[in-house]
Amino acid sequence: MTEEEFLRFLVRHLSSGPEVLRAAEEDCAVVAEGDVSRLYTADALVEGVHFERKYFSSEALGWKLAAVNLSDVAAMGGAPEGALLILGAPSLEEEFLEAFYRGLRQGLEKYGAGLLGGDTVRAPVLFLGLFLFARAASPVFRSGARPGDLLFVSRPLGASAAALRFLKEGRRPPEPLLQAHLFPEPEVELGQEVARRALASAMMDISDGLLLDLSRLCRASGVPGAELEEVPVAEGATEEEALSGGEDFALLLAVPPEKAPLLGGLKRPLFRIGKLVETPGLRLKGRPLSPQGFDHFA
Amino acid sequence: MTEEEFLRFLVRHLSSGPEVLRAAEEDCAVVAEGDVSRLYTADALVEGVHFERKYFSSEALGWKLAAVNLSDVAAMGGAPEGALLILGAPSLEEEFLEAFYRGLRQGLEKYGAGLLGGDTVRAPVLFLGLFLFARAASPVFRSGARPGDLLFVSRPLGASAAALRFLKEGRRPPEPLLQAHLFPEPEVELGQEVARRALASAMMDISDGLLLDLSRLCRASGVPGAELEEVPVAEGATEEEALSGGEDFALLLAVPPEKAPLLGGLKRPLFRIGKLVETPGLRLKGRPLSPQGFDHFA
Repeated sequence: MTEEEFLRFLVRHLSSGPEVLRAAEEDCAVVAEGDVSRLYTADALVEGVHFERKYFSSEALGWKLAAVNLSDVAAMGGAPEGALLILGAPSLEEEFLEAFYRGLRQGLEKYGAGLLGGDTVRAPVLFLGLFLFARAASPVFRSGARPGDLLFVSRPLGASAAALRFLKEGRRPPEPLLQAHLFPEPEVELGQEVARRALASAMMDISDGLLLDLSRLCRASGVPGAELEEVPVAEGATEEEALSGGEDFALLLAVPPEKAPLLGGLKRPLFRIGKLVETPGLRLKGRPLSPQGFDHFA
Repeated sequence: MTEEEFLRFLVRHLSSGPEVLRAAEEDCAVVAEGDVSRLYTADALVEGVHFERKYFSSEALGWKLAAVNLSDVAAMGGAPEGALLILGAPSLEEEFLEAFYRGLRQGLEKYGAGLLGGDTVRAPVLFLGLFLFARAASPVFRSGARPGDLLFVSRPLGASAAALRFLKEGRRPPEPLLQAHLFPEPEVELGQEVARRALASAMMDISDGLLLDLSRLCRASGVPGAELEEVPVAEGATEEEALSGGEDFALLLAVPPEKAPLLGGLKRPLFRIGKLVETPGLRLKGRPLSPQGFDHFA
């Protein structure tokens, strides 16, 4: 199965119930409870697949694991509460653990989540899984967008992928690119503000590349296509990296036109990249694009 | 670091706060919220470390992953609510996934928890991590026991370890032993009843062997020692397997003597194995025993 086939498998196999608002096809599982929604998400990183120790410090690894999960909560406008860690390793090296836990806790605690426990097991390869829970008064889903809604991203894209290109070539990336790859900042505050002010019809984080994630937003919302006009490219990154690189952890928002003027009230300006349309498919300045991104199992 | 050294490392590195009742040294992390406590736990299984595919069906693997986590919730008297799965695998095989998800969901749903989502990643080795969340009106901790409290276990011990002995010798274990190893039943209902009726001063599940887990209960409670009189041994298991085998997923309870008569009101009889004492160390019929169990990193 490819990753997309597996996602369809999941839709059939996850539990459902009246209180489970969304289980599959969202950044977090959402469970309604009284006036609030509880958000649950999990992400894993595996050595040799998601990172190489030779350019990832132990501290950066901890931070990134936190950031990947926090970004899922940010994407729905949630407030992180707590986390549990699953750590698999051939042995328990104190130096690694001290630095890794430091980075992990810095990331979590910066955004209000405590590290509460977990499980540590022996494994032939280093792997890290984090479970994060959060709450949201009014979570934003991927599925509320409509044709005509304007599309925005929260920052220039492609920096993380560009850093990886340097690293794979054995070169040290410019500092801002390296920072984006090793210590990405999840958009927790922005996501909460967008949710609180009900600015977006749909929102998600860009983790697998803009085009692939945008195609998922369209599918979840039942919108046929999107017209992109201008995608902000991080300095030092290529347009291809901005479109399909992945690991941006920027937010992608669909905003009804009548709400667009309200975006000026946000602490940071967003980047308008295009709009959702009735015409099927994705296009950049009229040129058709196929959604490509990272598929672990392709 | 050994596993015990790592547990001490964890005590220093987990977050704390007024609402975090217990983070380390318990079966679950416990967060107080109004009148209830929320329980969070995580456990991982790794191929070649915790199981071999040659004698673990995919369905049994799913069930066992659920049971290991459910047992942690049972140990504190919680009601399971939901779970997220982290799955790492070299490839996504539909036959495996269908059976694995079936077993996992059967285990979870039998005890009231839905499978809500998670993350699936490519990895050189098959590993499975589950996060389970639950609630408890009055969770039972490991730390409330006192010298003089009577010790009980919820069923005969050693069956899972005995099954593993057969399997490692290339022989098929008797059916009840195999069942205990592949499809263990977590004591969710018993744990809830004990908690609701406030019968135990301390409770935990036996996952790493009676002696090792009992020594942890003593340490958490600040009790110097325990005198064991008679430990129920599962048919086909040895006394050594009952004392130190592990993966029993039975409950171990400390019960104040004045409450012992109330145990007769439980749906199933418990097995009285001894009592907590002021004399340091563990003894069985007067013979000193050292707490031995499974240390993944020893």
